[in-house]
Amino acid sequence: MKIRAAIAGGTGYTGGELFRILLNHPDVEIVAATTTSSEGRSVADVHRDLIGETDIRFGTGLNRPDVLFLCLGHGISREFLDSHDISPDCRIIDLGNDFRIESHYAGRDFVYGLCECSRDEIRKAHDVANPGCFATAIQLALLPLASGGMISDEVHVTAITGSTGAGKKPGETTHFSWRDNNISIYKLFSHQHLGEIRKNLGKLAGREPVVNFVPVRGDFTRGIFASVYTRACRGMSSEDYAGLFRDYYAASPFVFHSDAGISLKEVTNTNKALLHTEVHGDYVHISSAIDNLIKGASGQAVQNMNLMFGFPETAGLKLKPSAF
Amino acid sequence: MKIRAAIAGGTGYTGGELFRILLNHPDVEIVAATTTSSEGRSVADVHRDLIGETDIRFGTGLNRPDVLFLCLGHGISREFLDSHDISPDCRIIDLGNDFRIESHYAGRDFVYGLCECSRDEIRKAHDVANPGCFATAIQLALLPLASGGMISDEVHVTAITGSTGAGKKPGETTHFSWRDNNISIYKLFSHQHLGEIRKNLGKLAGREPVVNFVPVRGDFTRGIFASVYTRACRGMSSEDYAGLFRDYYAASPFVFHSDAGISLKEVTNTNKALLHTEVHGDYVHISSAIDNLIKGASGQAVQNMNLMFGFPETAGLKLKPSAF
Amino acid sequence: MKIRAAIAGGTGYTGGELFRILLNHPDVEIVAATTTSSEGRSVADVHRDLIGETDIRFGTGLNRPDVLFLCLGHGISREFLDSHDISPDCRIIDLGNDFRIESHYAGRDFVYGLCECSRDEIRKAHDVANPGCFATAIQLALLPLASGGMISDEVHVTAITGSTGAGKKPGETTHFSWRDNNISIYKLFSHQHLGEIRKNLGKLAGREPVVNFVPVRGDFTRGIFASVYTRACRGMSSEDYAGLFRDYYAASPFVFHSDAGISLKEVTNTNKALLHTEVHGDYVHISSAIDNLIKGASGQAVQNMNLMFGFPETAGLKLKPSAF
Amino acid sequence: MKIRAAIAGGTGYTGGELFRILLNHPDVEIVAATTTSSEGRSVADVHRDLIGETDIRFGTGLNRPDVLFLCLGHGISREFLDSHDISPDCRIIDLGNDFRIESHYAGRDFVYGLCECSRDEIRKAHDVANPGCFATAIQLALLPLASGGMISDEVHVTAITGSTGAGKKPGETTHFSWRDNNISIYKLFSHQHLGEIRKNLGKLAGREPVVNFVPVRGDFTRGIFASVYTRACRGMSSEDYAGLFRDYYAASPFVFHSDAGISLKEVTNTNKALLHTEVHGDYVHISSAIDNLIKGASGQAVQNMNLMFGFPETAGLKLKPSAF
Repeated sequence: MKIRAAIAGGTGYTGGELFRILLNHPDVEIVAATTTSSEGRSVADVHRDLIGETDIRFGTGLNRPDVLFLCLGHGISREFLDSHDISPDCRIIDLGNDFRIESHYAGRDFVYGLCECSRDEIRKAHDVANPGCFATAIQLALLPLASGGMISDEVHVTAITGSTGAGKKPGETTHFSWRDNNISIYKLFSHQHLGEIRKNLGKLAGREPVVNFVPVRGDFTRGIFASVYTRACRGMSSEDYAGLFRDYYAASPFVFHSDAGISLKEVTNTNKALLHTEVHGDYVHISSAIDNLIKGASGQAVQNMNLMFGFPETAGLKLKPSAF
Repeated sequence: MKIRAAIAGGTGYTGGELFRILLNHPDVEIVAATTTSSEGRSVADVHRDLIGETDIRFGTGLNRPDVLFLCLGHGISREFLDSHDISPDCRIIDLGNDFRIESHYAGRDFVYGLCECSRDEIRKAHDVANPGCFATAIQLALLPLASGGMISDEVHVTAITGSTGAGKKPGETTHFSWRDNNISIYKLFSHQHLGEIRKNLGKLAGREPVVNFVPVRGDFTRGIFASVYTRACRGMSSEDYAGLFRDYYAASPFVFHSDAGISLKEVTNTNKALLHTEVHGDYVHISSAIDNLIKGASGQAVQNMNLMFGFPETAGLKLKPSAF
Repeated sequence: MKIRAAIAGGTGYTGGELFRILLNHPDVEIVAATTTSSEGRSVADVHRDLIGETDIRFGTGLNRPDVLFLCLGHGISREFLDSHDISPDCRIIDLGNDFRIESHYAGRDFVYGLCECSRDEIRKAHDVANPGCFATAIQLALLPLASGGMISDEVHVTAITGSTGAGKKPGETTHFSWRDNNISIYKLFSHQHLGEIRKNLGKLAGREPVVNFVPVRGDFTRGIFASVYTRACRGMSSEDYAGLFRDYYAASPFVFHSDAGISLKEVTNTNKALLHTEVHGDYVHISSAIDNLIKGASGQAVQNMNLMFGFPETAGLKLKPSAF
Repeated sequence: MKIRAAIAGGTGYTGGELFRILLNHPDVEIVAATTTSSEGRSVADVHRDLIGETDIRFGTGLNRPDVLFLCLGHGISREFLDSHDISPDCRIIDLGNDFRIESHYAGRDFVYGLCECSRDEIRKAHDVANPGCFATAIQLALLPLASGGMISDEVHVTAITGSTGAGKKPGETTHFSWRDNNISIYKLFSHQHLGEIRKNLGKLAGREPVVNFVPVRGDFTRGIFASVYTRACRGMSSEDYAGLFRDYYAASPFVFHSDAGISLKEVTNTNKALLHTEVHGDYVHISSAIDNLIKGASGQAVQNMNLMFGFPETAGLKLKPSAF
């Protein structure tokens, strides 16, 4: 028997991706999708690639879901919980950043849902705070080091994001005429995902690492490519790090270490993360690539749901890569 | 029990897409992939997005397949049949253009595999010639008219293709520095797909239509967007044509008429075709969008295989759209 | 001595291009730039690539110009003339569509400023209505035919435009996430430039031609590529048409017939138009490429100014192509 | 009277840009262009955007030039000097990397041509080694620090380059299908420009700095965007650095400090470099943007020529930005 899923705020990018994924999930039925802007419109009218795949319409009710995905934009999830009467039995997966740091709210305790780091905890969780997209790409590059106590110095991160990271609302920096063939930096050393990165890695490593993070706006639509480096452990070679990463992620069906250099499109439209490590001089460098909307948002949310409900971790997530 | 599939020439774009689709197909096991250039290399090393999904290596043997997909580049399929000993029981689906017009070869009779036109014939076919990508997009726009005897004048077609249509081998017009932000025309009024378009529509309509076809190179990777118009039937409105198209494709799980205008990315990374019709003055105009590598090649090949082997027509083809 | 130029509505795309061109024009001094939204801001703060090139600030006064460029968005030019006290001596070049069809207003008589068609008339004009971008690309493809009485049947046009054609204000179809790698049709057979095309070609040819025009949104920023065909004159070969075009444009310093096929980027960031002709069967096909913001707007406006003030036609317009 | 310029190896990207710039230079006449592949072809046939602008054909002779630009691909310049009889009076500007480190060859002494660093030396130089594109972008970000003795710790650089940086020859990583919407890293910590960066900055600063450099392949055609940071000097604020940079580049007509954050397209198709500085915590961060083919290659070469021949430094280099 399928579980009943509701999506709050389903007109945006992450909401759309949840539809695209859940419509093919063997264990899930979507029973409601709420909106503040598009009541009564059909989902396939808003997410036009879904023509022929669903008859659901956006509404205001939640329709007794077993799991509720919040795709509300950062800061709105708390308001939603305050203003809606949600059964305590209903599990919540929040794709915003409301509960990633402050995890207790409205009688609920949100587990930070980075599956590869906290798989067992998530399996037992009633509610989950889904990690941010940059936070996912960067932490996957650092988890094996942090959990092995191998971050001894500052971490240097430059990560490039696609335009879908900026959301659906059009603006100056997502205008095609501006962004096409353009590159720029924003929120230098101060991106809001640094909080959850430091907190979670700090829990693993015993102390919060210093992470210097340069976020870059790329002229592509999907994905995050992170370049991460820090002081290498004395005597550890590229092969040693490759082995470390391979071991760490051996039980993770979506994270792979590649011996060859990687490129972003190797993960586009999938729930995979791809990592590549190299030692040069004193530094170990890790390349990390994810699709920001899938592994960095809706795919990871479904992966969390799979763990929470005891489904196979990969259920509904064997997605055809777009590759080009 | 799964059928055994082999892919000849699997290092190219259509071969890669076949892997991406068939690896998740519930009824198929890939048992061999041949190559002339990459013997011994793993498939995931050539198609790097497939890391973690398959252990198959490229080789030279076919390994007793039930179905053989030929992804050999146009003109090479005949050579392959001549030089390989293939069991008469093995069904063949040719993705090249060798058997689309001249359909008899090597004791085999290739049915033209445009599913929406010849579904019943394909169900009984032993071998299939998969249509060309432009030919698919353009014919799907014209099938309801041709089969209804409603093409009374010349047809005007301009269709824009992504760079993957030009294949994997790099060249001047697929160089990023040249193609990015660029537009150009090629094979004006003389594209090689005109032959199969005229032949197949002629069979339906009783006589071959005149198709004026301007192929355009677009600065995107995936997809074909075709603009098609011809003289409208007297008295038929946009709504009449919408109804005609809806009826014609009622039993086709991948082809949809959209009442609103369409854009290419509504079908990208899916096996769908999307059509939109409008009457203006004397003309009826049809927009048609497909993913050239999927509905225009490997997806349609799998759809044909599904019909030939009695699998559900959509088996393995419920693909998550990339949308962005 | 330099003439004094003012730009009304200089914060948009065409206004920005006027700055970029006029700042290097040997015979022009920019004395004012008006705005309704950015009063007091420096021009280089709005058009940020102009850092270091100008100290002008946006204001509300016109500062006694010899020539006034109206870059106001379509329909606003009339309002501007009504609400501003402009010296009758001041020449006006309107980049909007207010005076292209109805050319008499406020005591002024606007000459349609397609230089290659009406060079002598423009030389004597006091005021000019600058043609639309599509109208420029399409008419340049047809002028030699229209003036030679060689359009005997309908004309079929498909023209693809870059995103800058849609203006600076962000919206759904100029959102990078939507437009990148996407293609779509808009204003099918009903684009507003059809009026000026038919009127002007009709004046040349004696009767207005039927022009079937499919406008396409391309996923690039600059340029228009038009595909144009109509019934060829009996007995005329490709070479004959090449000769016709070469002769027609012999005195035009910015329009060239290319014997080889053309691509859009051969004209990007220049005031050039490039044409290529081919005869196939009954049809003559013309490819036409321009930069929509330069030859299709601000460059042509400066070319008109050059003619009106007796400057060399190419003054300030020998622009380095971007090519890539 | 104009000087006579010859271009060796003019069929590539930097050769094409030299043509585009020099054809409009008031003090230069191009008298020859050599090639090993295209003898006899017209320049406008190879660089097709130059239609109508030049009658020069590629040949093998140099035609007694006053200045010879070598655009030969790295490592070929020495061979060219060995195999050609070049008058000792002829000045040479080498765009390759043959003489940037080892500056004495064939009786010539090549001055490292980073104009903003060595303007006076270049004015007296007989021959110049033009800096690399990455080397230009990165050094312009560091010159004020290096010359002020303000680099006290390692420098962290991530710089993203457009596809034209990889040259005209098509290959896997410049294939449009691969590169569009893709991001990847190459030559990690080991790019060949590190040598000239360290050597030149070391000369200024007294000792060679440690530069950790992550080169990134971007999915755009033109430009380099460099993100550079190092330990800030105690007590220096963002405003202090802004002042430092402004002062350092006060006499440099092409380099500007922007108080607002910058984006790559603010310099595209110009000879400008744009810099923006911010202090965060212990670090000072500099963003640096150039057009790799102009300020990073052919534009800088012309700027060097202007200095060497006593022309105004900006002669021929007041280029219209493409902006979009």
